[in-house]
This record gives sequence, structure tokens and C-alpha cells, in this order.
Amino acid sequence: MIYIGIDLGGTAVKIGAVSASGQVLGKAEKPTRAERPYGEVIRDMAEGIREILGQLNLPEDQIAAIGVGVPGAVNNDTGYVTDCTNLGWMNTDFRGEMHRYFSCPVILENDANVAALAEAKVGISKGTHSSIMITLGTGVGSAIMMDGKLWTGSHGVAGEIGHMILVPDGVACNCGRMGCVERYCSATALAEQARHYSLTYADTMILQMAGGKKENITAKMVVDAAREGDRLGVQLFTNYCRYLAMTIDNVINFFDPEMIILGGGVSKAGDFLLKGVLSYIPAYVMGAERAGTRVVLATLGNDAGIIGAALLGLK
Amino acid sequence: MIYIGIDLGGTAVKIGAVSASGQVLGKAEKPTRAERPYGEVIRDMAEGIREILGQLNLPEDQIAAIGVGVPGAVNNDTGYVTDCTNLGWMNTDFRGEMHRYFSCPVILENDANVAALAEAKVGISKGTHSSIMITLGTGVGSAIMMDGKLWTGSHGVAGEIGHMILVPDGVACNCGRMGCVERYCSATALAEQARHYSLTYADTMILQMAGGKKENITAKMVVDAAREGDRLGVQLFTNYCRYLAMTIDNVINFFDPEMIILGGGVSKAGDFLLKGVLSYIPAYVMGAERAGTRVVLATLGNDAGIIGAALLGLK
Repeated sequence: MIYIGIDLGGTAVKIGAVSASGQVLGKAEKPTRAERPYGEVIRDMAEGIREILGQLNLPEDQIAAIGVGVPGAVNNDTGYVTDCTNLGWMNTDFRGEMHRYFSCPVILENDANVAALAEAKVGISKGTHSSIMITLGTGVGSAIMMDGKLWTGSHGVAGEIGHMILVPDGVACNCGRMGCVERYCSATALAEQARHYSLTYADTMILQMAGGKKENITAKMVVDAAREGDRLGVQLFTNYCRYLAMTIDNVINFFDPEMIILGGGVSKAGDFLLKGVLSYIPAYVMGAERAGTRVVLATLGNDAGIIGAALLGLK
Repeated sequence: MIYIGIDLGGTAVKIGAVSASGQVLGKAEKPTRAERPYGEVIRDMAEGIREILGQLNLPEDQIAAIGVGVPGAVNNDTGYVTDCTNLGWMNTDFRGEMHRYFSCPVILENDANVAALAEAKVGISKGTHSSIMITLGTGVGSAIMMDGKLWTGSHGVAGEIGHMILVPDGVACNCGRMGCVERYCSATALAEQARHYSLTYADTMILQMAGGKKENITAKMVVDAAREGDRLGVQLFTNYCRYLAMTIDNVINFFDPEMIILGGGVSKAGDFLLKGVLSYIPAYVMGAERAGTRVVLATLGNDAGIIGAALLGLK
């Protein structure tokens, strides 16, 4: 039997067949084009699954389950995506639509939870007592794992670390409030800050990398410029690391997990990010015991979403 | 059988005999006088226990266990109080000393955890799926309960909500860092702010209540003045509620508990506090589901420490 995992993103839908032990056996990818009716996106998913079955030369009844990681809120009782602003999906009957193509169990989960599950089952946090995975991408998400199980809260919405208030009355956030973690610690925030300050730092390497057009600036350019010692790049990245360290330290002070895992786009900065963040840990963590929490990088990379979604089917 | 609960505070040691169902059967109290050798404090505890046995006309062998709530860190494997700055107890052999007087099991726990346990077993959070108790006193502590059990973290030090960073680079804290929750949400902080601003608001009712001496100002005076509409009192208390709401909301956004319980000295302000805090919840909590977390006042009052400590013996 194989387990299908679907990583539903704003740009692409990644589909994979995974073994019970978490090994990726085959993959397919489709553009999301979220402006389409959701039925067309799910039709493309079904097509991707059939492509993989073809690659592996397996019949449909070898699929044990289909799991999907959604960048939003889901309800597994109804099989609906309840609120996914990024895709514009509200109360969308995902399971019902998928059942038009495949009759196996279809399980939905938030994408940050899915990535955390993957790391806890076959990645860096395997065997830990407790861990928090923080995803640094377009937004900032997190997932809480205890004793190998996800803690999703009393209303199924735990882990919204991106909307904890980091700076009272700080930068305005999409959510309508001010000073949220997401406005300081997401890839989006890092790129936005660079766009803003590139007006006054006209000689910055970041602007050169973007071909002189500030609207083309990405978070990766800021990180790369910081590595090269570019003045604006270093300032913005240092500030980013400091705010991320405060956020991590707040989680450690409150929850005292065994491990914190950094994933998502910005985590691709690797040891450069880790070193920058770790330098601020003693400044904000209370007491020596808490400093025992290990802060590490995610290890499963781009496949985490596929693997975690597939492993949802193992339950 | 009876369960002895000891609430070890900076000023007083409260001792109680409690039934297995959490009913307080008898009480005694001794001044702590923490400047004494710890052996003398524990000798007074033993004396208090004997007084209660006398009140109840029970022999010593009717004590099932002795539990103690400590305003600091403890180690139940060794029976030591490992770090209690308030009393100046560092690596203090509490259990060994208590066993000089009584041979029953002696269990130690942090005082915030003890109060949360009491509320969860016989108080307002009984039967909840998850709850966080926040203690607003000299400092700000918290305890995390899930499915009737305490979550103490991977290094036994979870719940240090008072030292989460609330205001980056904010007011300097005793812990050596800046902007900690404790500097905005403790009784101490509220009194300190009033002392500071009483210089410029010389006509404030708070200063009158303190007999004109700013060093006599307490948090209770600020709350009482706010109730009366005193300008400085209202400003400080409103600000206090706003910062406390941000802290509560950060916990809700991250952890999504079923209930948040406010205890400790400032919670005696009752509905006046609750109303002030609740008015800010929609401003900082992300999404309607999370707003389902109930924020309530502790119900066990002064006896919570005794009851919770005694119930430690039920394990």
C-alpha cells in the first residue's frame, strides 16, 4: 500500500506517493492557479495522483489514504477547508470533491502541522518529548508536538505564532491588528523592509540584485546581501534574527519544549540564520534550564509537506 | 486519611488539612521570616501540622502525605527546593528536613502549578480539556494544565509567562533583561508605576490613600483609585488591562486553551479587572474560534495554595 501526500501551496500543488516508513516513491507537481474554481485545482490533484500511479505501475486500490496539507484552517469531521484566505477557499468541500476521483480516506490538516508531523516522524525531531516547528515563509506558522502527537488546541486553532503581538502598537498587519510576529519574522516582512529602505540606501547590493527595481526584491536577496556584508542587508537581517530570537524565546519561556525547529523559505539561509538567531537566545531566555531547548533547522526540506501529509493516513 | 497542604509564601506559611475531595478541614498559619535558617521555617511548619492534628483530634499516622507549594523551582526526585530567590533558598533539602518530623511522603511543586491544580481539581477549571492559570502577584507566574495533568515542560520549567518579552527593549527587569511581562502585569509593576507618576500627578487620590508617602503606594490603591475615576488610577489601570490582555491573547494565539484563569493578588479586583481585560481581547486575538477561550477569575482564593498542595498527595 502507498500513502498519497498533497502539499497545497499558493503557487504549486506538490503530490507524492510515500511508503509507510516515510520514503518518497514518486512525485508530481501542478500549478495551483488559485483564481480558478476549486474543483479544477482538485481535478489537477487527481490527475497528478494518476500520473504517479503510472510511474509506479500500481493500481488505484493500492492507495491506502490521501492526506493534504492546507495553508489554512480545516475541519476533518466534515472534510471541508473552512478558511484558507491565501487561496480564497472558504467552507470548501475538499473531501467530497476528491471522492469524485478516489474512494479512499481523505484527511486534511493545516500545513504547518503537517510539516511538524513529518519532522517528528521521520526527521530531526523524531523521538523528542516535545517540539515546536516554526515555519518562516509568506507568513509565520507553528505547530506544537507532544509525545508524538499534534496539539491543535481546544478549538483546533493552536500555533498561530505569527499573530502573537511582538511589538505593541507596531507595524500594521493584514489581520487588522498591529505588531504581529508575522510583520517582523516572515519572508514577506524582510522583503518589504528592504523595499522600504532601498529608497534611502540607494547603493545597496539588494537593489542591484533586484535589477534596480525595488518591487523585485525578495527575502533571499536580503539574506544573500547580508552574507556579503552589505550595510542594509546586515542591518535588516540582524534585526530579523533578533526579533525571531525574541519570538522563539517567548515560546521557550512559556512552553519549555525539548526542541524548536525552523522551517519554511527563510530557513534555507541555513547556519547563517541559525547562528544569527542563537546569538540572541541568552538575551531573552530566562534561566539556564530553558536554554537547554535545542533550536535546529528542519531537515526534510521541500518534501516535508508531501511526507507529513501522506503520514496523516497512517493514523 | 487527611492530606496536608502547605502554601509557602514570602510573608506567611499557610498550612491546612484537606480531605481527598479537596475540602479544607483545619488550618494554621506561621510567619515565614525568610531571613532565618530554613530549618527553623520547616520546624514551624511541623508545629503547625501538629496544631491542626490537635484541632481535629487525629493521630499522626492519619496523614497520607504532605504537599508543599514553593514560590520557586523544585526537584521532586531529590526533594530539594533548587532555586527560590524570594526566600533565598538554593538547593535546600526540604524533604529531608521535613522527614525529621513526619515520615509520610513529602511532595514539592511550584506554587503557580499548585494553584492551577487546585482550580482544575475542585475549582473553576474542573473538567476542562486545557487551561492556563496566570498568577498576578509580586511577579507573574503561570501553569499549564492539559487533560487534568500539569505540563511542566521538557526541563521542568514551563509557564514562565512573567519573563516572556512583552515590549522589546522595554522596562528593565530584575532578571537582567528588558520588557518582560512581569514589568507591566504584576502588582509590583502597577505600584511602581503609580509611585513614579505620583510625582507629576501630585493631586492623585492614590497618594492620599498612601498618606502622602509614595513609598506606601500599593497595587490595591491604584485599583481602588481607578474605580473612583481618579485620573492617574484610570490611566494606569487601563494600561495594565491592555498589557495583560496582550499577554493573555498571545497565550491564546499560541496555545488555544479552553480556559484562562486569573489568580493572585491583582485578581482580587474581580469583575473590574475582568471587564477591563475582556474589552481588549477582540483587539489582539486572531480569529473567532480562539475568541472562544473563556477568561475567568480564580475561585478558590486564599485556600487555593493549601488545597492544591494537599492534592499533590493524591497522585
